[in-house]
Amino acid sequence: MKKHNIILQPSGRRGQVEQGQSIRSAARDLGVEIESICAENATCGKCLVLIEEGRFEKYDIESKREHLSPPTPEETAYFARRPRLLKEKGWELGQVRLSCQCRVQGDVLIHVPEESRGNKQIVRKTARERAIEIKPSIRKYLVELNPPNLVRPLADWERLAKGLETSMGLVRRGESNLPRWFELSIDYPCLRTLSATLRAAKWKVTVSVWQDREVIDVQPGYAEDSYGAAVDIGSTTIALYLCNLRTGELVAAESEMNPQIVYGEDVMSRIQYTIEHKDGLGKLHKAVISTLNKLLKLAARTAGIKTEEILEVVLVGNSTMHHLVLNLPPRDLGLAPFVPAIHASMDVKARELGLGINPCGNVHVLPTIASFVGADTSAMIMAEEPHNQDENWLLIDVGTNAELVLGNRRRLVCTSTPTGPALEGAHVEYGMRAAPGAIERVQIDERTLEPRYKIVGEEAWNTGKAKGICGSAIIDAVAELYRTGIVDSRGKFKPGLDSKRIRESGNGWEYVIAWAEETSIGRDIPMTQQDVRQIQLAKAALFVAARTLLKRSNLQNPDKIILAGGFGSYIDKEKAMLIGLIPDCELERVFAVGNAAGDGARIALLNLEKRREIDSVTRKVERFELPTDPEFQNQFMLATSFPHMSEPFEHVAHLIPHRKADPMAKNFMK
Amino acid sequence: MKKHNIILQPSGRRGQVEQGQSIRSAARDLGVEIESICAENATCGKCLVLIEEGRFEKYDIESKREHLSPPTPEETAYFARRPRLLKEKGWELGQVRLSCQCRVQGDVLIHVPEESRGNKQIVRKTARERAIEIKPSIRKYLVELNPPNLVRPLADWERLAKGLETSMGLVRRGESNLPRWFELSIDYPCLRTLSATLRAAKWKVTVSVWQDREVIDVQPGYAEDSYGAAVDIGSTTIALYLCNLRTGELVAAESEMNPQIVYGEDVMSRIQYTIEHKDGLGKLHKAVISTLNKLLKLAARTAGIKTEEILEVVLVGNSTMHHLVLNLPPRDLGLAPFVPAIHASMDVKARELGLGINPCGNVHVLPTIASFVGADTSAMIMAEEPHNQDENWLLIDVGTNAELVLGNRRRLVCTSTPTGPALEGAHVEYGMRAAPGAIERVQIDERTLEPRYKIVGEEAWNTGKAKGICGSAIIDAVAELYRTGIVDSRGKFKPGLDSKRIRESGNGWEYVIAWAEETSIGRDIPMTQQDVRQIQLAKAALFVAARTLLKRSNLQNPDKIILAGGFGSYIDKEKAMLIGLIPDCELERVFAVGNAAGDGARIALLNLEKRREIDSVTRKVERFELPTDPEFQNQFMLATSFPHMSEPFEHVAHLIPHRKADPMAKNFMK
Repeated sequence: MKKHNIILQPSGRRGQVEQGQSIRSAARDLGVEIESICAENATCGKCLVLIEEGRFEKYDIESKREHLSPPTPEETAYFARRPRLLKEKGWELGQVRLSCQCRVQGDVLIHVPEESRGNKQIVRKTARERAIEIKPSIRKYLVELNPPNLVRPLADWERLAKGLETSMGLVRRGESNLPRWFELSIDYPCLRTLSATLRAAKWKVTVSVWQDREVIDVQPGYAEDSYGAAVDIGSTTIALYLCNLRTGELVAAESEMNPQIVYGEDVMSRIQYTIEHKDGLGKLHKAVISTLNKLLKLAARTAGIKTEEILEVVLVGNSTMHHLVLNLPPRDLGLAPFVPAIHASMDVKARELGLGINPCGNVHVLPTIASFVGADTSAMIMAEEPHNQDENWLLIDVGTNAELVLGNRRRLVCTSTPTGPALEGAHVEYGMRAAPGAIERVQIDERTLEPRYKIVGEEAWNTGKAKGICGSAIIDAVAELYRTGIVDSRGKFKPGLDSKRIRESGNGWEYVIAWAEETSIGRDIPMTQQDVRQIQLAKAALFVAARTLLKRSNLQNPDKIILAGGFGSYIDKEKAMLIGLIPDCELERVFAVGNAAGDGARIALLNLEKRREIDSVTRKVERFELPTDPEFQNQFMLATSFPHMSEPFEHVAHLIPHRKADPMAKNFMK
Repeated sequence: MKKHNIILQPSGRRGQVEQGQSIRSAARDLGVEIESICAENATCGKCLVLIEEGRFEKYDIESKREHLSPPTPEETAYFARRPRLLKEKGWELGQVRLSCQCRVQGDVLIHVPEESRGNKQIVRKTARERAIEIKPSIRKYLVELNPPNLVRPLADWERLAKGLETSMGLVRRGESNLPRWFELSIDYPCLRTLSATLRAAKWKVTVSVWQDREVIDVQPGYAEDSYGAAVDIGSTTIALYLCNLRTGELVAAESEMNPQIVYGEDVMSRIQYTIEHKDGLGKLHKAVISTLNKLLKLAARTAGIKTEEILEVVLVGNSTMHHLVLNLPPRDLGLAPFVPAIHASMDVKARELGLGINPCGNVHVLPTIASFVGADTSAMIMAEEPHNQDENWLLIDVGTNAELVLGNRRRLVCTSTPTGPALEGAHVEYGMRAAPGAIERVQIDERTLEPRYKIVGEEAWNTGKAKGICGSAIIDAVAELYRTGIVDSRGKFKPGLDSKRIRESGNGWEYVIAWAEETSIGRDIPMTQQDVRQIQLAKAALFVAARTLLKRSNLQNPDKIILAGGFGSYIDKEKAMLIGLIPDCELERVFAVGNAAGDGARIALLNLEKRREIDSVTRKVERFELPTDPEFQNQFMLATSFPHMSEPFEHVAHLIPHRKADPMAKNFMK
């Protein structure tokens, strides 16, 4: 029986499947549960998957088709009945398939969208097991009122508020002689429709009360559920999670590229855009709002609800994303002394931002800590809770910029540092994303100096045709070049080593990982001196930032390291520690927790007390801006060295075959 | 030297002026101060007056011109320099004049707009002398901040809030371990411009804080004054008073017809319009908002400020006006059991209503008491303060509908009753408004049954040519017909009286006040049986309402009667009491206080504590809906009688020459 390779994203599960097996069945064999409530009859559409194959830059529909069975008549009928589904999602026919119908006939890379995943969790478990207590900011109360009459003609709002006093179990406060319901208010748009709703509902309504003080929705009769959206606004991707606020259940998840990317790749260029262009801020603001509205609509459709039933949105994002979504000028985030407009968390009415949810719904934005330590870091702290620990934890969120938080219940310190895009595979000569053809693992034999490599989509090492190197292999390669002595502790290729893979090209020295004939691009794929240098710079930035926080806290090393974001999920933590990308720590105490910011946003959405907790925690976080003086620059340059040939990190010492004193590194480590 | 008559509105001052005297000079002689700061050089425009002559229905510019000198070259130049002034005010050239330039050459009726009046008062003194303490909801604080630096990079808002803590003298509260400024917030649009303002102002700003808790404006440098507008939305007229919130000074006043009048004359027909027309509510709402915006612009221009400097608006009006300006459906105000959407006072952001003031400004709407006892009554209570008295006061605001409030510091009761338009001169055959040619006073000799009358604009009685009868003369005439025995206590003309003025026409009996040759219309001007009936119905409504409140309060008569609105200002209180239009009371304890609702709005604008006081008072006011059962209808019909032939009101008994038992009336009075 012929077998094919299948990779399931975003989990990264991979394996061999038999010719003709359905994707859904194959996924289950690999431990990935895909939803279905129609017994695989192609009617429920819960098992939708996206076929992702080939490089991101070029999407080859033709080659993809032959690796999968053509759509069945049932499947074709399913999509024919939903002509707007594909259009709204921006999908092409053929790209999206029903995994119960579609059979594997070749190697495939499949993306299982969040809404199709089985075994949904309220909040993805991170390193520490945790259940989120559902204590949302919005509670619903059924209120049955006596209609007014000529003897008791109390106004509609006062009548409702009195009824709520009973339903909410409000009690008179000690000092006040006012009824407790006088402290309730009703949001203006809700008041506008109150009289008509009460009468249409024959005086029996379900009232949504925000933070036990403001009525934001009145629905006729009995209604149980309301919904909220947690949104993580990344510079590159916007992810939205729609949750049932009563059960905590995730009812839809949608994501989309951040449309601001056309105005600038990174945050600095977007800040620059707002400074240099008339109404630049307005454009960037409207771009993100219109994408949020699109995602809200899609999620509501998926969940089978109206957008008016969405009563709250929680937003997280770095300080620039925070300012842009709030339409706050981000100019001073990018100019010394780098201050945000506001640290505090905010509640803004969705209508003020033009967000298409219930008109009385609120948008809660998590607090910012500093210009480069934003609401995403607050969310990460919320998700991981270092402030509730006795141990000292180091949280690192790596992107183009890295944010670091260190400490425990007594003290938290934080900083940020630009790491550049090298760690994500950019600015590296043959860098590419983790897709079929990408080298994802590299090992070098320390005696022969010959490499082994593994390509995404291949089970065995040294098989398949390479197209480039993805982020994890770049770190692998640098670590291996160093471990095997091909480069020295300063990152320089050592002269005189006996290997044809080590050669001098027009741009300096390089080490060839794959020869041209092993590739699908017909060129040698090397790691260059320049590539090593890029990683050294990124590594130095992270190292100095972590070291600064540790010194400030009088700590040698953290008790635990938590790597947030995609970065942490694909790198080999041993290799990362070997080159000093992360500080020394027991390897089994280094955890990758995925999108901690998104988790934090969901926690904030579902638990009002946690919002108050993070407000209080972020007020006390001490932040250090890394200095920029020449003395510090010197330290930074020293830190580009791989410092542990003489004094290796204890927990990776066994990997290092030869130790040679490196006085520069030693100086810095002290 | 030739002399002419001049009447100055709205004060009603009148007198004779010499040919060629300027209006401003003539006004001063009559005790009406008109502003001027250019020493009568026709450059400041502070002395603008409106020439009002002839009937309301038809504006006769031609006849007006000849009674005044033509515009001087200076005056013409003044208006030529302000081409938009007339257009914006809706005035015609010739209708508006500079009173320092314009000389009297004939009889004239002049309106002195509020902004031209000298001796401005913060709040017009009412019956009781009162000074308004200026305690506005908005306070300004100068804050000087240290700019952020790399060592202290606190965010802009937190930096400002900390600075405000010092400027405001906020102190840490006993229990909380949070700085007091954590309880401050900043309105979202203000946050949007905060960073740029702070930097442009070099960190020295004046901050406007609403109710000591929300920052609503940040201005560069030192700024002293902010402004607020008090608005009385009448069914017919909208009056706006722009005040300096620091000094309480009235800096501009504007008024305009309520544009909703095209959708219905009275509140019931406007309510009906919202029910019967698609988006009827939206139309009525937009109409009043656009007029408010026009008045705000005009007032700001007059005061020489920007509309952005207006930081708060206080609105009062009857419940229907209240609902329409807030865009709340008024349907249930007009349908039994007649309930408003809300009683409580409200603060709504001006931007939610589309009001063109500072985007962070609030609109404060006074509380409503019942469907027909609206925010205008709350404002009247606020202005007159019966709740702070030991005596029992009766407040009556008469329009098409009358609202009555009775009581003292221990208890207030209120009700409302439809009085019809007769008291305002409408639905009376020769009724007209108080303008030249209107009979304004009537006396009848009880022996000869011959009348005397006085015409508006005439000094002497029985001179001039009559055009019709205005409201005050209608009440005079009914009272005199009754006092002289021409009509009986049931309002019926008595047969067999010897006077050619009493005659039967096609429509029943009538009494001729002016023969055709004494009029400018060439027809006899009579009071008809029908006219008397109209007044009886209005009088019965008021009488029953007042009697009901008195009975509920176990009172025989009030200690003081306060007549609010235009009605009270022009009637002869003795005559009104004679026919039982107002209850028995010492005549010198009956006061006309003019626009008490407008006064109340200004008090609310200038004094936050008074707002809280009226919130508390209106919650405790007991309201009685007058019943509609047949028994009550019977009582009402009895009350149409003039009840005091047998037992006249003590304080007008001396006016009544003959007393004859009237058993019906007697029954009712017990």
